[in-house]
Amino acid sequence: MFPFEPPDPQFESRTRESFARQKVMHLLGATLERISPGSVDIQMPFDARLVQQDGFVHAGIVATICDSACGYAAFTLTPAGYEVLSVEFKVNLMRPAIGERLVARGTVVKPGRTLTFTRGDVFAIRGGKETIVATMLNTIISRKLNEGGHDGE
Amino acid sequence: MFPFEPPDPQFESRTRESFARQKVMHLLGATLERISPGSVDIQMPFDARLVQQDGFVHAGIVATICDSACGYAAFTLTPAGYEVLSVEFKVNLMRPAIGERLVARGTVVKPGRTLTFTRGDVFAIRGGKETIVATMLNTIISRKLNEGGHDGE
Amino acid sequence: MFPFEPPDPQFESRTRESFARQKVMHLLGATLERISPGSVDIQMPFDARLVQQDGFVHAGIVATICDSACGYAAFTLTPAGYEVLSVEFKVNLMRPAIGERLVARGTVVKPGRTLTFTRGDVFAIRGGKETIVATMLNTIISRKLNEGGHDGE
Amino acid sequence: MFPFEPPDPQFESRTRESFARQKVMHLLGATLERISPGSVDIQMPFDARLVQQDGFVHAGIVATICDSACGYAAFTLTPAGYEVLSVEFKVNLMRPAIGERLVARGTVVKPGRTLTFTRGDVFAIRGGKETIVATMLNTIISRKLNEGGHDGE
Repeated sequence: MFPFEPPDPQFESRTRESFARQKVMHLLGATLERISPGSVDIQMPFDARLVQQDGFVHAGIVATICDSACGYAAFTLTPAGYEVLSVEFKVNLMRPAIGERLVARGTVVKPGRTLTFTRGDVFAIRGGKETIVATMLNTIISRKLNEGGHDGE
Repeated sequence: MFPFEPPDPQFESRTRESFARQKVMHLLGATLERISPGSVDIQMPFDARLVQQDGFVHAGIVATICDSACGYAAFTLTPAGYEVLSVEFKVNLMRPAIGERLVARGTVVKPGRTLTFTRGDVFAIRGGKETIVATMLNTIISRKLNEGGHDGE
Repeated sequence: MFPFEPPDPQFESRTRESFARQKVMHLLGATLERISPGSVDIQMPFDARLVQQDGFVHAGIVATICDSACGYAAFTLTPAGYEVLSVEFKVNLMRPAIGERLVARGTVVKPGRTLTFTRGDVFAIRGGKETIVATMLNTIISRKLNEGGHDGE
Repeated sequence: MFPFEPPDPQFESRTRESFARQKVMHLLGATLERISPGSVDIQMPFDARLVQQDGFVHAGIVATICDSACGYAAFTLTPAGYEVLSVEFKVNLMRPAIGERLVARGTVVKPGRTLTFTRGDVFAIRGGKETIVATMLNTIISRKLNEGGHDGE
């Protein structure tokens, strides 16, 4: 299984193009860092616009970058002409999301023609030290481009 | 159990004050609508800054407003001087999140001194018609104000 | 959407036949009660063989009957010649599972050609009174009979 | 964080005693194998009484052994006089659970005074080869012995 063989040798450029179309990533200041077959890192600097009532990054924003990291991890293993959508995810919020920046690491656990199962961890970086703040499981569906929702809806 | 008895008669003003401190809600254009004991609605107009690669509202943003709706549903049932944090949540993304606006409805399923279990649904509104696009289960912890993370960390 | 239209008019007999093949239901003493399009109840008497260290029914056994209730709720809406498998589920364990018996109610939230999203609640019945002890979200995949796992594996 | 320091030096015998009281483990034929601070393996031979309609071990039974493995992983890190309960779990069922036996490996991701976050993987063993069939995230609450449910209910 490891290392995964990407069916599309252009997986990296294709992943960067799709990420560039996720306008919400621009709004959050999130950037796509390392890409390898079945694994992707997304980084986001701390931003006071993104906090909840205590000044921590909102759980949903932590989930947003981790969901994209998981989705693009799956995307690196799809054939050209396919795209991915999250079917569902679950996230455990283990520590307050505070620090200079957050890094979300998405990894494929089990790829599949229809469904790909992924895992993601989010780390807060403070003074050069990484601490895990959240962990996610995410189910991704692959479909041909322009098919709409999960079932063509 | 129903209707829930809020231990703090000022639950509504206290909830609106906490929501006003969630800066990310301002960024998303989300507003706190109906509040009742154990139940809260948050509304968000469609905004092209919030989309993923297909032009749908990003799953994580859908989760963000639903997580806040669930958290504040739990918050309406806490005593004064307490606050809430999400421990974890799970969301099913059932249809593309597109429409004029989204409404997230959070509801307490089982309140508790330490842990409160909530459920949330997100509806897309198009041409006056509501369609469910996502559903969430969310576990919330209550703590005295200013205690930091789940375990005082 | 409601009430759901089952594509197979024989949905009830087909559901009962499949349930009869779930040998684990016999072991647990679980029985299939009410069946309607998109909704199924499974009942299980309390049994001292099924407990965890405190004498409550084990969380995994609570999940087992609820997963089957959700899966068969989805199954009632599949065409003849199809079967279902759980892709994933998430369960909140809100109260100890004790009582004379448990009832798991599975309901379809959003049916689909490939994926069906369901919800389940488990109630403990003590002295004729029902109390909710657990709630579940469950994602189900439909496939033609005899295709093996999710992706024909 | 790693390796975890167990506050109770008798963690192993205490864990084996608690496991022995989980009567459902006897019913399933499950045994507690390796125990180390923050990590536990549970093994279960394939058993035709435990299958769903296709002859695979039922998803809920896979979850049952994995939930116990996660719970006991958390239990190894609690002080003497404490016990643990699952608050919630989420499981991804990635491949059919078939083989000579299953092994569930639970590991603590983040211990805490009140809540401990764990992860579990279930492997099917066929002809000496391990294949991952399921993965779980599990939230565990610690309480003093004999306090009843999550909130003393």
